[in-house]
Amino acid sequence: MQINLREAAELVSGKIFGSEEITITNLAKIEEAQPGDLTFLYHQSYEKFFKLTRASAILVKPDFKKTRTDITYIETADPNIAFAKLIIHYFNPEFPLNGIDKTSSIHPEAKLGSNVSIGKNVVISNGCRIGNNVKIFHNTVLLEDVEIGDDCLIFQNVSIREKCKIGNRVIIHAGAVIGSDGFGYYNDDKGIFHKIPQIGNVVLEDDVEIGANVTIDRAAIGSTVIKKRVKIDNLVQVAHNVVIDEDSAVASQSGVAGSTKIGKHCLLAGQVGIIGHVEIADNVILLAQSGVSKGIPKAGTYFGSPAKEVKTTLKLEAHIRSLPEYADKIKKLEEQIKLLQEELKKLK
Amino acid sequence: MQINLREAAELVSGKIFGSEEITITNLAKIEEAQPGDLTFLYHQSYEKFFKLTRASAILVKPDFKKTRTDITYIETADPNIAFAKLIIHYFNPEFPLNGIDKTSSIHPEAKLGSNVSIGKNVVISNGCRIGNNVKIFHNTVLLEDVEIGDDCLIFQNVSIREKCKIGNRVIIHAGAVIGSDGFGYYNDDKGIFHKIPQIGNVVLEDDVEIGANVTIDRAAIGSTVIKKRVKIDNLVQVAHNVVIDEDSAVASQSGVAGSTKIGKHCLLAGQVGIIGHVEIADNVILLAQSGVSKGIPKAGTYFGSPAKEVKTTLKLEAHIRSLPEYADKIKKLEEQIKLLQEELKKLK
Amino acid sequence: MQINLREAAELVSGKIFGSEEITITNLAKIEEAQPGDLTFLYHQSYEKFFKLTRASAILVKPDFKKTRTDITYIETADPNIAFAKLIIHYFNPEFPLNGIDKTSSIHPEAKLGSNVSIGKNVVISNGCRIGNNVKIFHNTVLLEDVEIGDDCLIFQNVSIREKCKIGNRVIIHAGAVIGSDGFGYYNDDKGIFHKIPQIGNVVLEDDVEIGANVTIDRAAIGSTVIKKRVKIDNLVQVAHNVVIDEDSAVASQSGVAGSTKIGKHCLLAGQVGIIGHVEIADNVILLAQSGVSKGIPKAGTYFGSPAKEVKTTLKLEAHIRSLPEYADKIKKLEEQIKLLQEELKKLK
Repeated sequence: MQINLREAAELVSGKIFGSEEITITNLAKIEEAQPGDLTFLYHQSYEKFFKLTRASAILVKPDFKKTRTDITYIETADPNIAFAKLIIHYFNPEFPLNGIDKTSSIHPEAKLGSNVSIGKNVVISNGCRIGNNVKIFHNTVLLEDVEIGDDCLIFQNVSIREKCKIGNRVIIHAGAVIGSDGFGYYNDDKGIFHKIPQIGNVVLEDDVEIGANVTIDRAAIGSTVIKKRVKIDNLVQVAHNVVIDEDSAVASQSGVAGSTKIGKHCLLAGQVGIIGHVEIADNVILLAQSGVSKGIPKAGTYFGSPAKEVKTTLKLEAHIRSLPEYADKIKKLEEQIKLLQEELKKLK
Repeated sequence: MQINLREAAELVSGKIFGSEEITITNLAKIEEAQPGDLTFLYHQSYEKFFKLTRASAILVKPDFKKTRTDITYIETADPNIAFAKLIIHYFNPEFPLNGIDKTSSIHPEAKLGSNVSIGKNVVISNGCRIGNNVKIFHNTVLLEDVEIGDDCLIFQNVSIREKCKIGNRVIIHAGAVIGSDGFGYYNDDKGIFHKIPQIGNVVLEDDVEIGANVTIDRAAIGSTVIKKRVKIDNLVQVAHNVVIDEDSAVASQSGVAGSTKIGKHCLLAGQVGIIGHVEIADNVILLAQSGVSKGIPKAGTYFGSPAKEVKTTLKLEAHIRSLPEYADKIKKLEEQIKLLQEELKKLK
Repeated sequence: MQINLREAAELVSGKIFGSEEITITNLAKIEEAQPGDLTFLYHQSYEKFFKLTRASAILVKPDFKKTRTDITYIETADPNIAFAKLIIHYFNPEFPLNGIDKTSSIHPEAKLGSNVSIGKNVVISNGCRIGNNVKIFHNTVLLEDVEIGDDCLIFQNVSIREKCKIGNRVIIHAGAVIGSDGFGYYNDDKGIFHKIPQIGNVVLEDDVEIGANVTIDRAAIGSTVIKKRVKIDNLVQVAHNVVIDEDSAVASQSGVAGSTKIGKHCLLAGQVGIIGHVEIADNVILLAQSGVSKGIPKAGTYFGSPAKEVKTTLKLEAHIRSLPEYADKIKKLEEQIKLLQEELKKLK
């Protein structure tokens, strides 16, 4: 791959400082870059690598101190976004899956759009409807009446249960399970669980991305809904009847219990847990390992288990770290009081 | 689907108030119900929807205030259970999997009962024995000598390793792995791990349900045992040689470390972790994200990491929230003491 | 299986006490052992079973009190390791997978070494290179250009994405996903996520073991690297560009966020979470459910969320448990101060 430096700079609305007469053939991380590579600097913790990097060119912020003269700089407002745009432009991976593999099992009543690619051993059941330009990788299974829009990418070993609906440009990574039964039982008077059939479905709207080995349960009744542009990381659990609203993101190993509603533009960091039957407002950020046991009606950043506003949690954490000191102070106060009491006794 | 209101009321030992001459065709959640739907009200947080619901009939508790006259009520002791019973009666899903698919690979030495349905690309290895009325969905793999009882439902992409034993009426959801190797190593004097072969198996007793992408490791030696009627939610980890006793339930993303024994009628909420080699008594409830680092010999509800009786944890949490106040008080006490000391000095 | 007691004792550098004229046919846990079984005692909590065990022989430490005369003892420095060595010697499981199954799909441009076994419905794509003595179980998928060394064991329903590189003697358990896209997006000024193509790969070095349903994301650019002899338990998440150094172990349901580097000989217990872009030193132990929000530059044992040195966490936990007492003391101090103030007033 030959990358023209001026073209690259234009793509990211950047300004070149230094030699433009260099040949760029690859993109690389700053600590691994070699001559011929273009790299980027955005996270402070990586500045230590700047002195040593062997990259030929580097994306930097306009205020970056250009202390080296043997490297070409491209100044750009956000080097991270700029680098991403270059990856998208020059290196967007294509997946060599073409046509309908003869080992796949496609029910004669299923309907496929144009330019659909179906991998080996894929199962597409009765009543499925698949749009145009969809790629479904090997060993993935769609049960009855699954609907998939256009331009979707569904990786291998994915399970999509009956009646689930998937929008356009949705990506589902390997091993994800969409539409498994919700965890729904009722207890009889002997404390024995009886399964409640889960007769709803899962709806993934346009531009949703679902990570590897994620599980999204079908609704008990109605739909579990992942709205437009929501991004869900690996090993996340979404329980029955949950709704996650537009443009939210859920990082790995987080779990959302049944019937909870998460607002727009929310961010759940890793290993967050949210109880069932609550509502989380728009623009709520939950830091890693937070545990949410009641609704959050107000935008903001929350942390801890149980989750509180992050300022509160950090302040309380500082107090917790001071507990040995507080205990000492209490002890000292007790001694001082005792002394005072004794002295006062003497005075009386 | 036409639902006869009187029949429905009888099924749930209910009493009708209002018009019986209505036609019910579906069941729906209160906030989504349309004319012709029967809904239910059991969770206080949903009462706000009662005024607005378009449902034609509603299951309510006997003490519910029937403020609307345009809706038919069915009074029943537990509307949640009643609704579940109606779902089971009218909507229990049937899975259209019939016969042995010709793309499946069934070893000639495997034994299948009557009315067994095997999906596409299913692998059933040498020595497997499968009971009657079992459905095994597409792309599921059984290694050697797996035994499965009657009336089981095993969804797609499930892995069952060699020698595992599965009872009657067991349900296993997509992507679950039953019988993977336990995480067993010994360290040599250089701190290098050496794998200990895991030569036991997994036993799932009657009426167990296993969620999507669950992992249950085979015993190092002997059996990992999930006893009768235990229900396990998605993405749960059960380590080698664990025993979970009858009628317990484990919610999503919880993990139980090696050789731990969990009693009867226990409930683990989501993201709970239990250390290895301990015993949990019968009737123990562990609230979400609890971390258990030693055995729990007494029934009760526990919470926190490390887990304590829930009352204790909530009391301590309240104290933690008061820490800034305590710190202020200590500071004030110190100042007051100082003043007292000075005044006392003057008096002497 | 007939086990010769003298041979077994020699294998573990052990010394026999009691009758050598017994026939051993199996290995068993102490609480389940039957006549003819050899068992072992290493964990204090199992000593209660010693009085009752029906085992014919038992591995014990040299200082164990041999109070029973109806059982043969083998004294050995570490009964746990000794038992493991006997399992490896006498019971190492063999997996009856032989030859290339005719239902597998192997691309003509893929290269396979000698003595490779490929199960049913396995997909091996263009450009894959597989070493000698490798077993790949049913329904596993390798996308393009995957490289696998010698003597690997890859169980069923595993997904390995394009360009990933796997060393020698690597074991990958069922349902694991190697090389899924990292969770990488950039936000535009409307807060909408745009996917950054993840164009790196995953490298698993020699003697790595990967648990069931684990997810290891490919690097955004460069490689996510799991170094020699690292062992990863079920349902663990390893994000893009993480490096886990030699001889470390990660227990179930732990997660490591993007670009974090974990040192050599580290141990992560279950459900640990580590934030992205930090470094963890060699020989760091993180106890269960710990949450790490910054780098750990020093070897040691850490615990809690946020993680602190274990001594500190346990001390603070003890203080937290004392909070009701501290609150009482503060209240009492306040009363005493008030009394003192009043008495002092009187004196003036």
